[in-house]
Amino acid sequence: MIRTHEAGTLRKEHEGQRVTLAGWVARRRDHGGVVFIDVRDSSGSAQVVFREEDHAHDLRSEYCVKVTGEVRVRPEGNANPELPTGEIEVVASEVEVLSESAPLPFPIEGGADVSEEARLKYRYLDIRRQQIAQSLRIRSQATYLANEVMRERGFVYVETPNLTRSTPEGARDFLVPVRLQPGNWYALPQSPQLFKQLLMVSGLERYYQLARCFRDEDLRADRQPEFTQIDIEMSFVDQDDVIELGEALIGRIWKETLGYELPTPLPRMTYADAMARYGSDKPDLRFGVELVDLTKYFADTTFRVFQAPYVGAVVMPGGASQTRKELDGWQDWAKARGARGLAYVLVQEDGLGGPVAKNLSEKELAGLTEATGAKPGDAIFFAAGALGPSRDLLGAARLEIGRRCDLIDESQWSFLWVVDAPMFEPVVDEVGREIGWTAVHHPFTGPKPEWADNFQDHPGEALAYAYDMVCNGMEIGGGSIRIHRAEMQQRVFDVLGISKEEAESKFGFLLEAFKYGPPPHGGIAYGWDRICMLLAGGESIRDVIAFPKTASGFDPLTGAPTPITVEQRREAGVDAKSKAAAPAPQPSA
Amino acid sequence: MIRTHEAGTLRKEHEGQRVTLAGWVARRRDHGGVVFIDVRDSSGSAQVVFREEDHAHDLRSEYCVKVTGEVRVRPEGNANPELPTGEIEVVASEVEVLSESAPLPFPIEGGADVSEEARLKYRYLDIRRQQIAQSLRIRSQATYLANEVMRERGFVYVETPNLTRSTPEGARDFLVPVRLQPGNWYALPQSPQLFKQLLMVSGLERYYQLARCFRDEDLRADRQPEFTQIDIEMSFVDQDDVIELGEALIGRIWKETLGYELPTPLPRMTYADAMARYGSDKPDLRFGVELVDLTKYFADTTFRVFQAPYVGAVVMPGGASQTRKELDGWQDWAKARGARGLAYVLVQEDGLGGPVAKNLSEKELAGLTEATGAKPGDAIFFAAGALGPSRDLLGAARLEIGRRCDLIDESQWSFLWVVDAPMFEPVVDEVGREIGWTAVHHPFTGPKPEWADNFQDHPGEALAYAYDMVCNGMEIGGGSIRIHRAEMQQRVFDVLGISKEEAESKFGFLLEAFKYGPPPHGGIAYGWDRICMLLAGGESIRDVIAFPKTASGFDPLTGAPTPITVEQRREAGVDAKSKAAAPAPQPSA
Repeated sequence: MIRTHEAGTLRKEHEGQRVTLAGWVARRRDHGGVVFIDVRDSSGSAQVVFREEDHAHDLRSEYCVKVTGEVRVRPEGNANPELPTGEIEVVASEVEVLSESAPLPFPIEGGADVSEEARLKYRYLDIRRQQIAQSLRIRSQATYLANEVMRERGFVYVETPNLTRSTPEGARDFLVPVRLQPGNWYALPQSPQLFKQLLMVSGLERYYQLARCFRDEDLRADRQPEFTQIDIEMSFVDQDDVIELGEALIGRIWKETLGYELPTPLPRMTYADAMARYGSDKPDLRFGVELVDLTKYFADTTFRVFQAPYVGAVVMPGGASQTRKELDGWQDWAKARGARGLAYVLVQEDGLGGPVAKNLSEKELAGLTEATGAKPGDAIFFAAGALGPSRDLLGAARLEIGRRCDLIDESQWSFLWVVDAPMFEPVVDEVGREIGWTAVHHPFTGPKPEWADNFQDHPGEALAYAYDMVCNGMEIGGGSIRIHRAEMQQRVFDVLGISKEEAESKFGFLLEAFKYGPPPHGGIAYGWDRICMLLAGGESIRDVIAFPKTASGFDPLTGAPTPITVEQRREAGVDAKSKAAAPAPQPSA
Repeated sequence: MIRTHEAGTLRKEHEGQRVTLAGWVARRRDHGGVVFIDVRDSSGSAQVVFREEDHAHDLRSEYCVKVTGEVRVRPEGNANPELPTGEIEVVASEVEVLSESAPLPFPIEGGADVSEEARLKYRYLDIRRQQIAQSLRIRSQATYLANEVMRERGFVYVETPNLTRSTPEGARDFLVPVRLQPGNWYALPQSPQLFKQLLMVSGLERYYQLARCFRDEDLRADRQPEFTQIDIEMSFVDQDDVIELGEALIGRIWKETLGYELPTPLPRMTYADAMARYGSDKPDLRFGVELVDLTKYFADTTFRVFQAPYVGAVVMPGGASQTRKELDGWQDWAKARGARGLAYVLVQEDGLGGPVAKNLSEKELAGLTEATGAKPGDAIFFAAGALGPSRDLLGAARLEIGRRCDLIDESQWSFLWVVDAPMFEPVVDEVGREIGWTAVHHPFTGPKPEWADNFQDHPGEALAYAYDMVCNGMEIGGGSIRIHRAEMQQRVFDVLGISKEEAESKFGFLLEAFKYGPPPHGGIAYGWDRICMLLAGGESIRDVIAFPKTASGFDPLTGAPTPITVEQRREAGVDAKSKAAAPAPQPSA
């Protein structure tokens, strides 16, 4: 090492020692003949004192320097109690500029607001800023902790291929032309799902991987074309085993990085409850404001809008005092979400107001505050129509109420499991007719034991043996007990309308593997970027990804992606026709 | 868990306990009314006793079963001391077939030889076989150990992108079309080299990653298009720091997995020495048989073949007693390597024989055994010609001698560092003229300190600040101290004939980053597949990769790669023209 000490580790007890530091020029203060420079390295920073004639005038922001000098206790009254090194300073006797810095595109010190484009283009400078560096360190710490937990529990870390065949995850695959087999393409995996199930057939019993996944999805705000998951699969287990492991894993991580004790066992809520009470399959339980089902209440209503399969409401505390403009704003908010508007009633001291009130009967008005739990001063928002979209709207309104009314305690953690999701959901055609079923999770998700024999007869009611871990209204993990019997798998394919040929071509190798004594198994995958974002207190997963891309998949730092040359195109075999007629080419080696 | 115990953990002290096991039907023995079945799970196996009427006749090889029964100590004389569970058996009272198995393509038990194609196609069954499962477990153990060492030493685990821009590593990139930016392509990284250097500019100081790398190389025996490296980079370090860390890392892994104590500090050998003494930059030191430089010895020879820039020899102990056919075999061996043949002299009790001896003078013959160290009964092999190819040939002959004469103790480990490699090697045109220089490592490798100022004046002699870790004749790690000064980097580009435009287009973003106070830094990457192969005692890296591909990049299990549909092709934008004229497109978000 070209230094003897890390700057941030110097203390009073180093007094009188000759030390050599190496780091970056952070803050600089000139005081008539004496220059104070904070030298920053990854451990923190220390104040270095130069006499002006000692070339300190050469040292500009973010120069990389090596400084030798003597540690001394700062003079009376000059200590800085807010800095770990605030009691000492280093009196420089030698200084060497290891490398200079051009003027910076944005300041490193001081926490200034910088445009995201500049941050990503100069990501290496962005990471020098304390908050981003700290986020990456927390991610690293969490990764080490995950390894520790999985190692203690005997999981086998297995790396699965990234150059592989399409996986049936629902999104588009990224494709890779294969020069040595012109006309043929690899797909980058959307997840190691099929491989981890194969590893269970292999008898490894406990699989774990920090797995890179690739999904070619359309633009979304916080989307990355590649992301990381903590990928886990176990044999001979039941739902409780996977849940217990997950709580141990997440518990250790939250405890060691944030000092937060996970209240295990975490509460479990059924999917049906979550939808009914919070209008969401990932409810944020840091605040109340539950949905109220008023379908029965308005069963005999003469108000046309409420003559619907579902009528529900959510109460906004203090919402009656909103201005006309604010109330109109809610209509715009609802329309932006694809709804026709957001009906409301204002609960005033002297009765119920707002446009909807006029349309309700005396009796309907009289019981409404009791039915909804609204108090004078509150607003009641309604949604009426089909069950799903109405609950979605109320669930979103609930979250918006939480934000606008400042009901969410950001210092709190709300963890829970959402279980018993439906196995299937209807596929709907352009005019809204249900024309079949699709898997809510993936086609290898098993039914709950009580649905094992007859899910095919009631696809709309059958429950999956699936579980999602939810934190602060975000899904951070999801998994299921898988199907391991060919006969049951076939019944699922039948419900999904997947033909033998289609199943064979998409995942024939998994079905083949299942002929050879597959064990009962299940697993889970945790969204690592999102978990690290929560740990780091970030607002975007880009905060915890060292080199993220923009929503369109562009990397402002490297300029990727780029056009390719004609030569690259020819060589990669992009335009070659496959010689193989069948979907699977013959082995050539 | 659907079992109470793991089969391999049962011992005498479990006597009388009622246990439930789950696993696979391994060996089966029928003894008139009683059936003995070994039930195997990931922990090992236990003998289960069935009365024949208890449905044991249904249990065939590799059925997955759940068995409940009572543990009893085996009757006198029936214990099997070779099995950890050999003192007990489980008397079955209940059995449930969890899943059946079709007839197997090859036996799981018994270690039969199976073709590689069958093993890869049914990889999930191959992994059930003890040796492969054990190899994957050793890899996992080594991965956990690597994490442990790097965590203890404060390294930040950072995941770098897999969808990125071309990296200048010399092999071809795999390319990925980008649907959202039609006409533009990502490249899969050949290594995280540029990103890890950027992380040093970021001030992270200690970076570590288990990194997937992708190289589109031509067919080679043990090639995989994707592979894993333990990737490390450090700031403010010197060569000794990176070497010390590497010895700690590899030392911990060998110690914990194999109980082998690495003799640290490992010996260091210069590249020049390695080439002169072993004809290799990765010498296998498990046996002697060094090359002898006879250039001076034959300086005045009249034998045309030895009138060459270099004449060298290697001695084959006992080689004089080879048959004519064996000696001819060496000629074929040499020709297969591109040499014209392998001149030899046989040291017999009564003088020197073989075809070359006739061409040598009395004086040359008289001193030859002393000059080469050959003893009566040995053969002396010669190579004469240009230095490089001649040493390569002798180095290969040395290894072949080691194998044929059984000189290599396979139970030994030979670790060393090869240091001081040349910075540059000549680029040669079709007719053998030197027309320029290429980097032996990569263009960011720094010169040794003593060459810092003048490497550009003597490109053929300048030494790189580079180091390779070699084990048993294989390079298992390689790295260097990097260049961090723009001025020095420019001199390297000048030697390499890389124009400003080319440098800008290939790695302009790294050069830009180096304007902002880059720290001195260096690092290393360890070939993880090869290291795990050595740990597992495998013969191919395919033994330690869960789902490997054949040499042509084909996966017999999934059938990847496959043709893509016209729709996929259209959607992925494979045939779109880029709208950007410049190499780097503009950010679109």
